[in-house]
Amino acid sequence: MEYTLLAFGISIAALIFAGLLARWVLRQPVGTPAMVAVSDVIREGANAFMRRQYRTIGLISVLLAVVLLLAYGLTGSWSHGWQTAAAFLFGAASSAVAGIVAMAISVRANIRAAGAAQRGLPQALQIALRGGAVSGIIIVAMSLLGISILFLIYEWLGFSIQEIPSLIVGYGFGASLVALFAQLGGGIFTKAADVGADLVGKVESGIPEDDPRNPAVVADLVGDNVGDCAGRGADLFESAAAENIGAMILGVSLFPVFGIKGIMFPLVLRAFGLIATIVGIFSAKAKADENPMNSLNRGYWVTSVLAAAAFYFVTQSMLGNMWFFWAGMVGIATSIVFVYLTQYYTESRFRPVREIAEASTTGHGTNIISGYAVGLESTGATVVAISTALLASYWLGANSGVAHGGLYGTAVATMGMLATAAYVLAMDVFGPITDNAGGIVEMSKASEDVRRTTDKLDAAGNTTKALTKGYAIGSAALAAFLLFSAYLEEAHLSVVNLANVEVFIGALLGATLVFVFSSLAIRAVGKAAYYIINDVRAQFKENAGIMQGTSKPDYARAVDITTRGALKEMIFPGVLAIVVPIAVGMTFKAEAAAGLLMVGTIAGILMATLMNNAGGAWDNAKKYIEEGHYGGKGSDTHKSAVTGDTVGDPFKDTAGPSLHVLIKLLSTLTLALVALFV
Amino acid sequence: MEYTLLAFGISIAALIFAGLLARWVLRQPVGTPAMVAVSDVIREGANAFMRRQYRTIGLISVLLAVVLLLAYGLTGSWSHGWQTAAAFLFGAASSAVAGIVAMAISVRANIRAAGAAQRGLPQALQIALRGGAVSGIIIVAMSLLGISILFLIYEWLGFSIQEIPSLIVGYGFGASLVALFAQLGGGIFTKAADVGADLVGKVESGIPEDDPRNPAVVADLVGDNVGDCAGRGADLFESAAAENIGAMILGVSLFPVFGIKGIMFPLVLRAFGLIATIVGIFSAKAKADENPMNSLNRGYWVTSVLAAAAFYFVTQSMLGNMWFFWAGMVGIATSIVFVYLTQYYTESRFRPVREIAEASTTGHGTNIISGYAVGLESTGATVVAISTALLASYWLGANSGVAHGGLYGTAVATMGMLATAAYVLAMDVFGPITDNAGGIVEMSKASEDVRRTTDKLDAAGNTTKALTKGYAIGSAALAAFLLFSAYLEEAHLSVVNLANVEVFIGALLGATLVFVFSSLAIRAVGKAAYYIINDVRAQFKENAGIMQGTSKPDYARAVDITTRGALKEMIFPGVLAIVVPIAVGMTFKAEAAAGLLMVGTIAGILMATLMNNAGGAWDNAKKYIEEGHYGGKGSDTHKSAVTGDTVGDPFKDTAGPSLHVLIKLLSTLTLALVALFV
Repeated sequence: MEYTLLAFGISIAALIFAGLLARWVLRQPVGTPAMVAVSDVIREGANAFMRRQYRTIGLISVLLAVVLLLAYGLTGSWSHGWQTAAAFLFGAASSAVAGIVAMAISVRANIRAAGAAQRGLPQALQIALRGGAVSGIIIVAMSLLGISILFLIYEWLGFSIQEIPSLIVGYGFGASLVALFAQLGGGIFTKAADVGADLVGKVESGIPEDDPRNPAVVADLVGDNVGDCAGRGADLFESAAAENIGAMILGVSLFPVFGIKGIMFPLVLRAFGLIATIVGIFSAKAKADENPMNSLNRGYWVTSVLAAAAFYFVTQSMLGNMWFFWAGMVGIATSIVFVYLTQYYTESRFRPVREIAEASTTGHGTNIISGYAVGLESTGATVVAISTALLASYWLGANSGVAHGGLYGTAVATMGMLATAAYVLAMDVFGPITDNAGGIVEMSKASEDVRRTTDKLDAAGNTTKALTKGYAIGSAALAAFLLFSAYLEEAHLSVVNLANVEVFIGALLGATLVFVFSSLAIRAVGKAAYYIINDVRAQFKENAGIMQGTSKPDYARAVDITTRGALKEMIFPGVLAIVVPIAVGMTFKAEAAAGLLMVGTIAGILMATLMNNAGGAWDNAKKYIEEGHYGGKGSDTHKSAVTGDTVGDPFKDTAGPSLHVLIKLLSTLTLALVALFV
Repeated sequence: MEYTLLAFGISIAALIFAGLLARWVLRQPVGTPAMVAVSDVIREGANAFMRRQYRTIGLISVLLAVVLLLAYGLTGSWSHGWQTAAAFLFGAASSAVAGIVAMAISVRANIRAAGAAQRGLPQALQIALRGGAVSGIIIVAMSLLGISILFLIYEWLGFSIQEIPSLIVGYGFGASLVALFAQLGGGIFTKAADVGADLVGKVESGIPEDDPRNPAVVADLVGDNVGDCAGRGADLFESAAAENIGAMILGVSLFPVFGIKGIMFPLVLRAFGLIATIVGIFSAKAKADENPMNSLNRGYWVTSVLAAAAFYFVTQSMLGNMWFFWAGMVGIATSIVFVYLTQYYTESRFRPVREIAEASTTGHGTNIISGYAVGLESTGATVVAISTALLASYWLGANSGVAHGGLYGTAVATMGMLATAAYVLAMDVFGPITDNAGGIVEMSKASEDVRRTTDKLDAAGNTTKALTKGYAIGSAALAAFLLFSAYLEEAHLSVVNLANVEVFIGALLGATLVFVFSSLAIRAVGKAAYYIINDVRAQFKENAGIMQGTSKPDYARAVDITTRGALKEMIFPGVLAIVVPIAVGMTFKAEAAAGLLMVGTIAGILMATLMNNAGGAWDNAKKYIEEGHYGGKGSDTHKSAVTGDTVGDPFKDTAGPSLHVLIKLLSTLTLALVALFV
C-alpha cells in the first residue's frame, strides 16, 4: 500500500506541477492581434478535429468493451469480463483525457511562443519547451495515476498485490486502442492536409507555403498538433502504461524473491523519472546566440543523469541487487544510442542524406531508390542496438543470482529507457508548438527578425520530432520482449514453437498484418488528401476574392472536411489491426497468437524503422539541396528531392508512427484477451 | 536401387531429348546477315559475362568448400567434412553446367526466333518456346541427375537409403550458393545495363531505345539473358534440388511406414513431371492470329493435367495412400492461384495497375506511393494463399492415418507445386529469347511487319517472366516449411522457442538480414550503372563517328566494364548472406539459427512479394499510359510513371528474385552446417 500511495502521490504532485506550469504559460502575453486571429482559427480547428475524433474513438471503445464483456462472460467468467471491460474503458478514457488536456495547452502555447519571438529566442524557447513539458508531464503522470488508482481500488476490494497486475491488463489495451486511432487519424489528417495544401496551393495556384489565402493552410497547422502532439502523446502514454503493467506481471513471477517490492518497483521508478524530468525542464535555458538544440540537449542530459541516480537509490532500497541497476543503465544507454542512430540516418551532416541528395541529380527515380535503400539499411544498426541491449540486460539479470532474473533484467532495461519519457515527450511537443508559432508569424506577416527566430526554433523542433520517433520505436522494441513474456506468463505457455504449423502461420500472418496495415495507412493519406483538395478548389471557385486577398477563406470548413476524410480512412486499418489477432487467437489458439505477436512485432520494428528513417532522410536531403547544394531551390535536382519528400511524408508521419502503436496494441490486445485463446 | 535407376534413367532420357530439341532449334535458319551480326555480339557478350562470373563464383565455392572441410574436420569428423565439401562442389558445378548450357542455347535461339519472325508468328513462337524448353528441361533434369548420381555412389559405397539424404545436403547448399551469386550478379548486371543505356541513350543523347549507336544497347540485351535465363535457371535448379533433398529427409522419418518408397517418392515424381513437361511443350502450337499467351497457357494446362495424372499413379503405386495425392493437388492448385494473383496485381486489366496509372496524374510522388502501397497490399493475398496451402496439405497428411504425416503432406504439396517447374522455366526463358529477338530485329532495321510479330512475342514474354517470379516465390514459401522441418530433423530439435531470448534475437537478425540485403541489392544497381554510363560517355567522346552512325561503338567493351561492376557489387551482399547465418548459428547455436531461418524466410517472402509485384505493377502502369491513357507517351503523367518504372526495375529484377534465392540459401546453408551449430 505504501508504494502505491507513493506513486499516487507523486503523480498527483506532478499533475499539480503541470497545472502551475500551464498557468505560467497561459499568463505569458499573447502576440499581436493579427497573430491572435490566426491562433484562434488553429485552436478552433484542432478542437473540432479532437471532438469528432474522440467521438469516433469513444464509439469504437464502447463497442469493444461490450465485445470484451460478452466474450469473457459467455465463455465463463462474467466478473472477469466486467473487470477487463471496466479497466479497458478506464484506460481509454485516461488516454483520451491526457491527450485532450495536452492538446489544449499546446494550441495555446503556440501563440505565446509566437508573441515571445518578438522579444527574443530565449523567451520563445522557454515558452515552447514549457508548453511541451505540460503535455509530457500530464501524459506520463496520468498513465501512472491510472494504474495507481486501479491498484488502490483493487487493494481496497481485498485483492492481493500479486493478483492485481493481471486484473488491470485491460487498462493497457484501452490505452493502446486510443493510441492506435489517435496516431492513425492524426497521422492521416496531418499529411492529407500537408499534401493537399501543397498541391492546390504551391503547385496549382502558385502561392507560397503558409500563405493566408490558401484555405488549407490552417488545416496544415492543425495537423501538426493532432499528429505530433495528440498522436505521439497517446503513443507514449500507452508505452508507459503497457510497460508498467508488463513489468509488474513479471514482478509477480519473482514474488518469492522480491515480494511486493518487485511488483511496485516499476511504479516507483516511473514516479522518480517524473521528478527528474521536472528538474530537467528547468535546467534547459537558452542563451540568445546559441543553437536551441544545445539547451534542449542540456536538459536531456540533466534528466538522464538524475534518472540514473534515482535508479541507483530505488534499486538499492527496493531490490537490494545492483545487477538490476546496471540493467537499467543499459536501457538509458540504449535511448542515447537511438538518438544518435536516428541523427546519423536523417541529418545532412552524415553520409546517408548526402548520398540521397547526390542521387537526386540523376532524377526522381534514383532519389527514391537511394532513400529507400537508406531506410532499409538503417534497420541493421537499429536491430544490432536492440539485440545488444536485450542480451546485455538479460545477461545482467541472469547473473544477478535471482532465479529467472534474466527476463526481469530486460524489464528493468525497458524501465531505464522509459525513465526519461516525459522529457522526450516535452521535446516532441515542442515541435508542433514551434512549427505553429512559425506558421502564425508567417500568416500574420510579422517582421523578418521574428521570422528568423521562429525558423531557428522550427528547425530544432524538426530535429526533436525525428528523435522522438527513434526513441519511440526503440522503447517499443525493448518493451516488446517484456510484453511477450508477460503474455506467456498469463497464457501459461513456456514455449512458442515456430516449427508448429499453426504457430508458423500465425507468425506469417503477423508479419503480413504489418505490411498490409502500412499499405492502408499510406494509401489513406492520398485518399483523405482528395477531400481537402476538392474543398480548396471549390472555395477558390465560389469566392474569387480569396485569391485577390480581399476576402478570407473558410479555414474551418477545410479543417472539417479533412477531419471527416481522415476519420473515415482510419477505420479500416484500425479495425483490421484488432480483428486479425483476435481471429488468429480464437482459431489457432494462444501459441499461434504468440507467434503472430512476436513476428508481427519484429516486422513492425523493421518496417517502422525503415519508414521513419527513409522519410526523415528524404526530408533533410531536400532541405540540404535547398541550402544551395547541387543547384539549390528550383533546380531539377531539387524537384527530384521534392518527390522523395512527398513519398517520405506518409512514411514518417503516418505509417511509421502508427506501426509503433500497432506493435504495442498487439501486445496489450493479446494480453487482455488471452483467456479467449486458451 | 530400382527407383534410383528409374530417376537416373528418366533424367538421362530427358537430357537426350533436350539435346535433340536443341539440335532442332540450331538447325533452324538464322535471320539476315544484319541480324546475325547483332546476335553474334550478344552471344559474345553473354559468354564474356558468364566466363567472368563463373570464375568469381568458382573461387568463392572453392573457398567455401575448404571452410566446410576445415569446419567439420576440426570439430570432429574429417569424413563428414569431405562428404559435405564434395557434395557441395558437385552441386555448385552441376548448377553452373546447367546454367552455362541453358544460356548457350538461349543466345542461339534468339537469332533463329528473329529470323523466323520473317516467316510468321507461329514459327517464331515455336522456336522461342522450344529454345526455352531446352533450358527448362536441362536445368530440372540436371538437378535430378545430380541427386541420382550421388545416391548411386553412396549406395555403391554401402550406405543405406535412410542414411543418404543427410549425406547429400551439401549438394543443395552448393546449388543455392551458385544460384545466389548467379541471380544477384545477373540481376545487378541486367538492371545496371538497362538503367545505364536509358540514361545516356534516351535521356542524355536523345536516341531511341535499342538504337545501334548506343554502345550500351548490347549490354542491355545480354542482361536479359544473364538475369532471366541464367539467374532464374539457377534459382529453380536449386529449388528442385533443395526440395528433393528436404522431402527425402522427411521421407527418412517416415521410413517405418513407407520404407524406401517414401524416400524415393520425390525423385520419381520429379522424373514424371519432366515427361509431362515434354508433352506440354509439344502441345503448345500457336495459330497465326492468336494471342501467343493462349498457346503458352494451353501447354501449361496440358502439363498440369498430365502431372496430376502422374501424381495419381505414382502415389497409388508407391505410397498406397491417396490422402497424399490430394496434398499434391493442393500444390498444383497453389501454383495456379499464384499465377492468377500475380496477374491481378501486375496487369493493367485490373484495379491495382489502373490505380497507379491514375495516381501518376498528380505527380512522381503519388505514383511511387500508390505503387508501393500496391506492393505492400499484395502480400496479404499471397500469404493467405500460402497459409491455406500449408494448412490444407498438413491437414490432409495428418488425416492420412500415417503418424507424423502432416509434415509429409506439406512436402508432397511442394512436390506438386514443383512438378511443372520445367514447363514454367521454359516459359520464363521464352522471355529473354523473344526480348532479344525483338532487339535484334530493331537493331538490324528489319521491316515493320517483322517488328510487329516480335513485339507480340515480347509482350507475352514479359507476362511469362512476371508469372515465373510469382511461381518462384510461391514455391520457395511452400518449400520453406518443409526445409525447416528437415533442418529440425537434422538438428535433433523438436522445438524452436521464440520466447527464448537468443532465439528471438536470431529471428530479429534473420528478418533484418532480408532488409539489409535488399538495401545492398538495389543500391548495387545504381553503383554498377555508373560503370556503363561512364564508358558510354567515354566512347562518345573518343569517337565522334558513333553518333553520326559512321563507325560502330565498341559493344564488347561496354559489356566487359558492366560485368566488372556487377560482379564487384554482388560480393558484399552475397557474403553477408552467408556470414550472418553462420555467425548466429555458431554464437547462439542451432535453435537460434532456426529462428533466423524461419523469421528470415517470412520476411523474405513478404519483401520479395512486395518488390516483385510493385515492380511489375509500376512497369505495366507505364505501359498502360503509353497505350494512350491519361495523355499517353510524353505527357507529364507518363513522366511520373517512368519514375515508378525506374524504381521498380531493381525491385523486380534484382532484389526480389535474389530474395527468393536468399530464402532457400538460408535453408540449405543451415541444413549443411547444422553440425557446427549443435
